[in-house]
Amino acid sequence: MRTYLECVPCLVRQALEAARHGSREETVHKKVLGRVLSSLAGADLSQPPPVLGGMIHRTVREITGDPDPYAEAKTRFDLMILELLDSFRRLVEISDSPLETAVRLAIAGNIIDFSVNAAPNSSDIRNGVKESLSLPLSAVSVRQLGDAVTRARNILYLGDNAGEIVLDRLLIEQFPHERLTFVVKGTPVINDVTCLDADTSGMSELVEVIDNGSDVPGTFLPSCSPSFRERFDRADLIISKGQGNYETLSEVPKTIFFLFKAKCPVITMDTGMEPGSLVLMKH
Amino acid sequence: MRTYLECVPCLVRQALEAARHGSREETVHKKVLGRVLSSLAGADLSQPPPVLGGMIHRTVREITGDPDPYAEAKTRFDLMILELLDSFRRLVEISDSPLETAVRLAIAGNIIDFSVNAAPNSSDIRNGVKESLSLPLSAVSVRQLGDAVTRARNILYLGDNAGEIVLDRLLIEQFPHERLTFVVKGTPVINDVTCLDADTSGMSELVEVIDNGSDVPGTFLPSCSPSFRERFDRADLIISKGQGNYETLSEVPKTIFFLFKAKCPVITMDTGMEPGSLVLMKH
Repeated sequence: MRTYLECVPCLVRQALEAARHGSREETVHKKVLGRVLSSLAGADLSQPPPVLGGMIHRTVREITGDPDPYAEAKTRFDLMILELLDSFRRLVEISDSPLETAVRLAIAGNIIDFSVNAAPNSSDIRNGVKESLSLPLSAVSVRQLGDAVTRARNILYLGDNAGEIVLDRLLIEQFPHERLTFVVKGTPVINDVTCLDADTSGMSELVEVIDNGSDVPGTFLPSCSPSFRERFDRADLIISKGQGNYETLSEVPKTIFFLFKAKCPVITMDTGMEPGSLVLMKH
Repeated sequence: MRTYLECVPCLVRQALEAARHGSREETVHKKVLGRVLSSLAGADLSQPPPVLGGMIHRTVREITGDPDPYAEAKTRFDLMILELLDSFRRLVEISDSPLETAVRLAIAGNIIDFSVNAAPNSSDIRNGVKESLSLPLSAVSVRQLGDAVTRARNILYLGDNAGEIVLDRLLIEQFPHERLTFVVKGTPVINDVTCLDADTSGMSELVEVIDNGSDVPGTFLPSCSPSFRERFDRADLIISKGQGNYETLSEVPKTIFFLFKAKCPVITMDTGMEPGSLVLMKH
């Protein structure tokens, strides 16, 4: 998906928020903003928004000198959702359709996204989960996902955000672990998952975890490592979490199921989905 | 008031919205955005936000070739509020405190602001008026304003937006017309009032109307005409409507009553007022 003009002010806002995570000095925030404004002025908007997001967060890391401005926030969210995990798992266990409930919870986790929203608190998350259990979700798509997983020999599950990864566990627990690999980012970027979150969340004990070698908050194949690209090519099913992965993979010819919450006007424009809706979309 | 870093993404968003008002061509919108990003990258943020806003809207007018992108919207809002004027005037007439009610209605008009919000519809405006009649407003400040008007010989009332100007009439009807002059912008900028709105709204028939010679969406004295600055110096009371006038005059040593609705986080930060509150503040 290309970068819409609406993405530009949103990227400027993200740069400021990230700069404030990385430093307390207003002169530093100002310097980040100045550099990001200049870069965006000359940016190629035919690229997906996460590519520009990657550039912005690289600038933030460089100017603030903080290699991981969201480190504390990410661990906090992993631990916050871990505390709620058993109660959420119970919802899957008592459900008439455990797969559908697990899909709903995995999508609910997608509200923990620092690029679009302010950080949610634990009550926002409980409300988000509650809402996700009742919002429309195509039963046909859930069945298609289940069937695709049953048939696939080699599944890549592209993770999205810290905290959210804990709810991804509930969905992955429904799948054959030996045929599924969970993918994290190669370098910290916003609150996207890295190997550390895979360890904190318990994901590493459940399935194989690899990183994509990239610092783009999505899966932009030209920026990924050769070894990840090889794994991507070999996979016969991709399960892609979050807007960033959708934005970077929406035009890649491959069997991909996209799972995310439609959080911004640009995504609703691009997908035709209602704002706030649960998206489970086969590509 | 200086430009806060939060103003920067908001100004970028404004640029895009204004570009879309001025042209239907995406290449034009892109060109506006590129130029505005470059200008903001090197901008002096010690200036008030409307000075940067003025620069942005100048760029929009230049690149789109449209000297008044909000022309149609402004007249539409003037006429929309004119249709409601009699019912609103009735609220003042039946009030126990006509001055306070007129102040509340004049502030309610301040929701018609294209720089901060999307354009309100007539039901938003009725709801805004209803809300403004019940929100807290200091009775002491209203009395101080009444006393100051009684004592003043030479009052300047600095207008803000189209549509809103119709509700300003209700407040000005409470004041001695021969001692009051209404001020509009010298050049169209966003939906700020110009002479045309003073005519459409009937303001020109009520009191003297002058323009400030400037295209800044506020009252930035260095950009105003010498003749306006002379009138400003001579005035012994300034009544200032809207955030833009507050942002440009908050540090000018003069007797000024600021009337506006606190619409953005930066204003609530600067004034210490709650978001959405009615502000009647003596300076």
